Amino acid sequence: MAKTPVLTPRSDDFPRWYQDLVNKAELADNGPVRGTMVIRPYGYGLWERMQAEMDVRIKETGAQNAYFPLLIPQSYLTREADHVEGFAPELAVVTHGGGKELEEPAVVRPTSEMIINDYFSKWVQSYRDLPLLINQWANVVRWELRPRLFLRTTEFLWQEGHTAHATYEDARDFAAHIHRDVYEDFMANVLAMDVVPGRKTVKERFAGAVNTLTLEGMMGDGKALQMATSHELGQNFAKAFNTSYLSKDGTQELVWQTSWGSTTRMIGALVMMHGDDNGLRVPPRLAQIQAVVLAIKGDEAVLAKVREIGDRLKSAGIRVHVDDRTDTPFGRRAVDWELKGVPVRIEVGPRDLENGTAMLARRIPGGKEPVAIESLVQLLPTVLEADQALLLTQSRARRESCTTDVTTIEEAVEVAATGWARMPWAKLGPEGESALGEHGVTVRCLVSEDGSVPDSDDAPGTLAVLARAY
Amino acid sequence: MAKTPVLTPRSDDFPRWYQDLVNKAELADNGPVRGTMVIRPYGYGLWERMQAEMDVRIKETGAQNAYFPLLIPQSYLTREADHVEGFAPELAVVTHGGGKELEEPAVVRPTSEMIINDYFSKWVQSYRDLPLLINQWANVVRWELRPRLFLRTTEFLWQEGHTAHATYEDARDFAAHIHRDVYEDFMANVLAMDVVPGRKTVKERFAGAVNTLTLEGMMGDGKALQMATSHELGQNFAKAFNTSYLSKDGTQELVWQTSWGSTTRMIGALVMMHGDDNGLRVPPRLAQIQAVVLAIKGDEAVLAKVREIGDRLKSAGIRVHVDDRTDTPFGRRAVDWELKGVPVRIEVGPRDLENGTAMLARRIPGGKEPVAIESLVQLLPTVLEADQALLLTQSRARRESCTTDVTTIEEAVEVAATGWARMPWAKLGPEGESALGEHGVTVRCLVSEDGSVPDSDDAPGTLAVLARAY
Repeated sequence: MAKTPVLTPRSDDFPRWYQDLVNKAELADNGPVRGTMVIRPYGYGLWERMQAEMDVRIKETGAQNAYFPLLIPQSYLTREADHVEGFAPELAVVTHGGGKELEEPAVVRPTSEMIINDYFSKWVQSYRDLPLLINQWANVVRWELRPRLFLRTTEFLWQEGHTAHATYEDARDFAAHIHRDVYEDFMANVLAMDVVPGRKTVKERFAGAVNTLTLEGMMGDGKALQMATSHELGQNFAKAFNTSYLSKDGTQELVWQTSWGSTTRMIGALVMMHGDDNGLRVPPRLAQIQAVVLAIKGDEAVLAKVREIGDRLKSAGIRVHVDDRTDTPFGRRAVDWELKGVPVRIEVGPRDLENGTAMLARRIPGGKEPVAIESLVQLLPTVLEADQALLLTQSRARRESCTTDVTTIEEAVEVAATGWARMPWAKLGPEGESALGEHGVTVRCLVSEDGSVPDSDDAPGTLAVLARAY
Repeated sequence: MAKTPVLTPRSDDFPRWYQDLVNKAELADNGPVRGTMVIRPYGYGLWERMQAEMDVRIKETGAQNAYFPLLIPQSYLTREADHVEGFAPELAVVTHGGGKELEEPAVVRPTSEMIINDYFSKWVQSYRDLPLLINQWANVVRWELRPRLFLRTTEFLWQEGHTAHATYEDARDFAAHIHRDVYEDFMANVLAMDVVPGRKTVKERFAGAVNTLTLEGMMGDGKALQMATSHELGQNFAKAFNTSYLSKDGTQELVWQTSWGSTTRMIGALVMMHGDDNGLRVPPRLAQIQAVVLAIKGDEAVLAKVREIGDRLKSAGIRVHVDDRTDTPFGRRAVDWELKGVPVRIEVGPRDLENGTAMLARRIPGGKEPVAIESLVQLLPTVLEADQALLLTQSRARRESCTTDVTTIEEAVEVAATGWARMPWAKLGPEGESALGEHGVTVRCLVSEDGSVPDSDDAPGTLAVLARAY
C-alpha cells in the first residue's frame, strides 16, 4: 500500500509533527478558554489505562484515595511562603459566586498542599494516626501563557499524593518508595519508557520542598521531559498548619511530609518518546485497544469472520476492537489505526478466508505477514509482549546513544542542541547551573555514576544530567 | 456488649442523625469555601466502587469516556435560553487568571452541555459519525446557599453523558436505555435500592430538555431523593450550536440529543435509605470492605490467625480488611466498623482459637453467632448475597408501606408529612401541582399503573408520585 505522508515528518518540524499527531490521532483539541484542552475518547482511553495501572501501585503502598475541594480560600495560599511565591503568577481566581461578589475570593486549586494540610492538622492527633497516606485524582488549573496540548495546559488532570509521617526517615523512605515502585515501575513496565531517576538541584526543587526526586525522559527531539516528581516536604507545611501528634512518649511532635504527582503530560511524553512519522505507537500493556480486527470488504463471510476472531481474542483476554465499518475505504481505516498506534492489526479479506489466513500488521517493529487465523489466539500474547519489550529497548538505546559526557559548559550547550549532556556536579555547581540557564539548558537531575539516586547533592561522584526541557 | 448511642436516633432528629453519621463514619467533612466538601477515604471508597460499577454499564451501551474543560467562556452560557436561565443563579465566575483581569470572564462548569455541544458541532459531519456517545467523569460547581454534605454541595462529583443521534426515535430510545439498563439496574442490583422510574412533569424538567426521565428513592424519613436523570434534549442544543450531519440521502439534518447524569448525591441516598441508628449499612456488592477480620486481643496466635483468615478470604475473591490495631480497644473498633456499615465482621479472640471458631457479626440483619473458622470461605459468599437481597427487600417493603393512594390535594399534603402519596395525574394536573408546591410537596414523577414509564404526560392511567424532596 502506497502511503501519502499524513503527518509533517519529525525531521522537518518536530513541534508541528507533535501537533499534527495529537490532532489526527484524535487525542485532544484546544479548548475555548486559552490553554485548556478537550481530551478526546482515544486520548482519554490512554489516561484511563494509565490511571488504572498507577492506582493499583499507589494502593499497594497503603495510600487511599480521597477528594478535596476545587476551590480554596485565597488566604490559605499565603501560609507557606515559598509555596505561594511559586504559584501566585499562575492562579485562576473566582471572585463571584451565586450572583454575588464573594467576601473572600477563592482560587481554583493549582495543587492541593494547602487545603489538604488544613485537614491533616485536624485528622492527625496521635502516633496511631500515622502514617497518613492520601492520594487524589483531580483536575488542577495553572494559568499557562504558552500552552501546548498535554505538555503545558491551563487545566490538566493528575494524581497528587500527600502523606504525613512520624519521622524524617519514614517520610524520606516513602518519597523514595513512590519514586521507585510506583512511578519508575509504571513507566518502565507499562509505558515501556526508559526514564532516568534522580534528584533535583536546589534551584529546580518544588516550591516548599526540601528535596525533590524526579524521573526524566528523553523525547524524540533529544529534549527532556519531567515525567513525575516525589517531594520530601520536611516540616515546612507542618509548621505552617501546626500539624502535630502526640508521640508514644507523650510529647507533641510535628509530622514529616511528602507529596508526589504525575499528570496528563505523560500522554504527551508517550507521543514524543514512541511516536514516529506514521503516528503514535502505544505500548501493548497500556493500549486500550491492543489489536484491531479489520474487515477489508463488507461481504457477509468476511464480516462474520472478523467478529468471530474478535470474540475469540476477547475471550483470550486481549483488548480487541472489531472494525467492520466497511462503508469507509479500507486504506483510510488502516492509516487511521496506524496513526492511533494500535499495536497489532489483523486484516481479513475474501482471499484470506479461502486460505484460512489473515494479514498480521505490527505497528511497533513495522511490517506485515500472513498468519493462520487458527494460530492468532496463541500467537498474539507473545507478539504483544515482544513489542512491549522492543519499545523499552529502543527508548533505552536512543537515550544512551544521545547522552554525552562533557567537561565544560560550552560542550554541554552544544550537546544539548540534540541530546543530553552529563557532567560532574562538583565541577558544574550552582554557578555553572546559572550559566547554563542563560542558554536554555537546565540540570534535569543529579544521578550517581551507577545510575542510583544520590543521597545528597554533594555525594561523591554525583553527575548532573543537562538538557533543554519541555 | 452494652452500647451507648453513638448517633442521635433517627426518630429524634433525622437531619442531625444524618450529619452525625456522615461525620462519625468518616464519609465527609465540610470544606472551607461555603458548601464545598472533603470526601474522606471511606466515603470516597464508596464513590470509587459506584464509579467502577456504573462505568462498566455505561461502556456496555457503547459510550466512551472523554474530558472537557472545567472553564467555559461566559458567552457560551447564553446560547440556549432555557438552559442559561436554569443555571445563571448558581454560577461561579473566574474573573482573573495569571495575575490579570480576563478579557472575557470564564464560568466554572455547572454542567457541560454548552462546551460539549460546541465540539459535537465540529465532530459530527456525516451520518457515519452517529450515534456519538460520550460520557465524562468530572467535578461541577453550582453555588449552593443551603448546603448539606453529599445532598447539596457547591462542588460535587458526577458523570454526565452526552449523545447525538440521527433520529428522534434513536435519541428517545437511548435516554430510556440509560435510565433502565445503566441507572435502574445499578441502583437495584448494586446499591440494593428500591427506586421508582418515571418521567418528570413539564415543571420539573431539566432546563433545556423536552423530556426528563428520573429515578426517585424513598429516604428513611419518607422524603424523596432524585437519584439520577436522563434527558431527551430534542433539537434544542442542535439548533443553538448548529450541530448537523449529511444524511445518507444527501440532505443536511440537525441531530437529536440526550444528556444524563448521576452524582455523589447517591452516597447521601445510601446513608438515608439503608442507615439505621447504629450507622451505615453498605450493600455487599458495593462495599469496598465486605468483611473485616478483627483481632480482639494482640497475642501472637490471634494476630497470626486473623491474617491467615484475611489471606484466605482474599484468595476467595472477598474484599477483606484485617483489623489488627490492638492498641485501640476492641469495643471501640467494633462500634466503628458498625458505624461504617461493613457487612460482615469476623471477630477472633484467644478463646475462639481453642474452639476453632470465630464470632460472625452481620451488620445488615443484625446479630452475631459463632461459626467454624474452616467454614468461612464457603459461608461468606452466601451470607453476603443474602444480605444484599435483604437490603433491597427492606427498601421495597418500606416504600410500599409508606406510599398511599389519595384523591385530594389535602390528603396528599397530609400523607407527604411521613411518606409518598399517589394520585391520578389527570385529576391533579399542572394546577394541582402548583397548589401542592405551596405546601412544599412536588410531583416526583409520573408513572403508569403497572409501574412502567408512561410515553407521555397524558397517557391514560398515569399516576403522579407526590412527596417532599431533598
